[in-house]
Amino acid sequence: MEYRKIKDEDKVRDSDVESVAVAVNNTVSDGETKVDSHRTQVQWKRKSMVTFALTILTSSQAILIVWSKRAGKYEYSVTTANFMVETLKCAISLVALGRIWNKEGVTDDNRLTTTLDEVIVYPIPAALYLVKNLLQYYIFAYVDAPGYQILKNFNIISTGVLYRIILKKRLSEIQWAAFILLTAGCTTAQLNSNSDHVLQTPFQGWVMAIAMALLSGFAGVYTEAIIKKRPSRNINVQNFWLYVFGMGFNAVAILVQDFDAVMNKGFFHGYSFITVLMIFNHALSGIAVSMVMKYADNIVKVYSTSVAMLLTAVVSVFLFGFHLSLAFFLGTIVVSVAIYLHSAGKMQR
Amino acid sequence: MEYRKIKDEDKVRDSDVESVAVAVNNTVSDGETKVDSHRTQVQWKRKSMVTFALTILTSSQAILIVWSKRAGKYEYSVTTANFMVETLKCAISLVALGRIWNKEGVTDDNRLTTTLDEVIVYPIPAALYLVKNLLQYYIFAYVDAPGYQILKNFNIISTGVLYRIILKKRLSEIQWAAFILLTAGCTTAQLNSNSDHVLQTPFQGWVMAIAMALLSGFAGVYTEAIIKKRPSRNINVQNFWLYVFGMGFNAVAILVQDFDAVMNKGFFHGYSFITVLMIFNHALSGIAVSMVMKYADNIVKVYSTSVAMLLTAVVSVFLFGFHLSLAFFLGTIVVSVAIYLHSAGKMQR
Repeated sequence: MEYRKIKDEDKVRDSDVESVAVAVNNTVSDGETKVDSHRTQVQWKRKSMVTFALTILTSSQAILIVWSKRAGKYEYSVTTANFMVETLKCAISLVALGRIWNKEGVTDDNRLTTTLDEVIVYPIPAALYLVKNLLQYYIFAYVDAPGYQILKNFNIISTGVLYRIILKKRLSEIQWAAFILLTAGCTTAQLNSNSDHVLQTPFQGWVMAIAMALLSGFAGVYTEAIIKKRPSRNINVQNFWLYVFGMGFNAVAILVQDFDAVMNKGFFHGYSFITVLMIFNHALSGIAVSMVMKYADNIVKVYSTSVAMLLTAVVSVFLFGFHLSLAFFLGTIVVSVAIYLHSAGKMQR
Repeated sequence: MEYRKIKDEDKVRDSDVESVAVAVNNTVSDGETKVDSHRTQVQWKRKSMVTFALTILTSSQAILIVWSKRAGKYEYSVTTANFMVETLKCAISLVALGRIWNKEGVTDDNRLTTTLDEVIVYPIPAALYLVKNLLQYYIFAYVDAPGYQILKNFNIISTGVLYRIILKKRLSEIQWAAFILLTAGCTTAQLNSNSDHVLQTPFQGWVMAIAMALLSGFAGVYTEAIIKKRPSRNINVQNFWLYVFGMGFNAVAILVQDFDAVMNKGFFHGYSFITVLMIFNHALSGIAVSMVMKYADNIVKVYSTSVAMLLTAVVSVFLFGFHLSLAFFLGTIVVSVAIYLHSAGKMQR
């Protein structure tokens, strides 16, 4: 893969904030600088918008899950819901593409047809997530659900490490410190009176948790690599191919896991208004993740979903009368400082 | 007070680490640079040594307290013990001074006699600590002991803020971030299943906790101001005058609080081997605090005592079979990152 290209592309994007600041401070003396400054401003705006969208969507997703849990147990089959999410994402990508074709005509960058060379890597992230989801069933033999929530924070570190290794992008020392703080802060915010149980996790549990974190991190970083490999390629085309394979894998999952239920009770058995809401939300946040991969990166995604986690807890106080712990406040402080340091570390580079 | 002088003095000291690094990297070309580099190296060594001593002494002090609590209730009167600590510190300062007089003779800097102008500020820190200790009795009407431990972490922030305001010394933005993290990390490390109670602290409790933090921070910063006001003055003379007033205030405390007990049971009633150990340890750590104020600053003191708190917990695992919580590990990670950022923030200034 053209990692070099990805890396260089990214350098331009990474310095967006600084470029804008410089452009504002200096007198713009020639047309080229003006165009550059405009371009970086547009890029920065787009990056902020998709990040904001991801944060809100991820947060509301978690709230919908709490809501649906409060309403009772899942009565629909999860595999059909996942399939519907992928289908909806495909449909949304196609609609967006249709509008672009109407406006700009079909070009090399936005045509749906593809080469084997381009498409061959697209099933990989979906396959990785599938393996991760399979492992998820087995890890509960060693860890309880709240413990698993704690261990999932390994994802943050694994994403950072794989981002560095696979995409060969550098974080400054301050940014690494911020990343460690993000992990510690998120974990702290999730602490409850039973969290210490997680320290008694048997060795197999730790190994599986780390394996799952690596799989999840690798899937995320690999998706970024695929999407950034062809920077000029329209994101909706890239999304379409990602999601088509997602549909395929989820169709297999239905056949393996829920074939009988679907046959006896019907595909949409147990779907409620909230189920439909969750599917829409899930689809939109999936698209937001792709957008963040295209216009920002996995690091931004991790910060965004961490903030979403905190936001969910705060909103839950108002919606469900949840109780915020001292640990939550401390975790929030640490995460906030981490976000500040991530950007301060960038500026000082 | 000659704050300007203090500030300039400090600038020299603050850049010790960098100076040493520069001196090592560059070829030392002339005698003056050589002397400079040697001086900064000596200063840096002294700073590290007193900081290390303070950390170990503070940590062992906490362990002795746990040990004595395990052994049973305090049977001696605390006021007489405090008086003995001050007396011992005075005695140690005098012995140290005697040796210096023998070696170097009596000079303007190491003579014990003083002017009213010099000595008039020395009772102030002792008086501030007295007020703080009085408040301590009343705060327990609003907060329980573990809650008070949590609220005491306000001391960290108040010390930083007063250090900035009174001593007019600057911390970089990264160092401020590190200071917030130090507070959050120490609090996280001390979390237990009952910590959330502290959030129900009534308003008066919060006000008193903040007042106590300000008093404690002010006393610390004021002590540094006194000691640094006369940089060439021998630290043992400065200590002697600080501790003489400490003795005075504690003598009053004995009269007010424990006069009857001392009259009926005797001054040293209930003293055990561990009581004597605690008095020695307390005296030595008091002297270490003064040394840190002289050769480093309040910020170093706060980091040092925070590390001591973590060290105590780890040592307690081995000594008393204590159990380390997940919160402790997370807090330790955050404190470690804070320490790194404090020094990284300094280097980038």
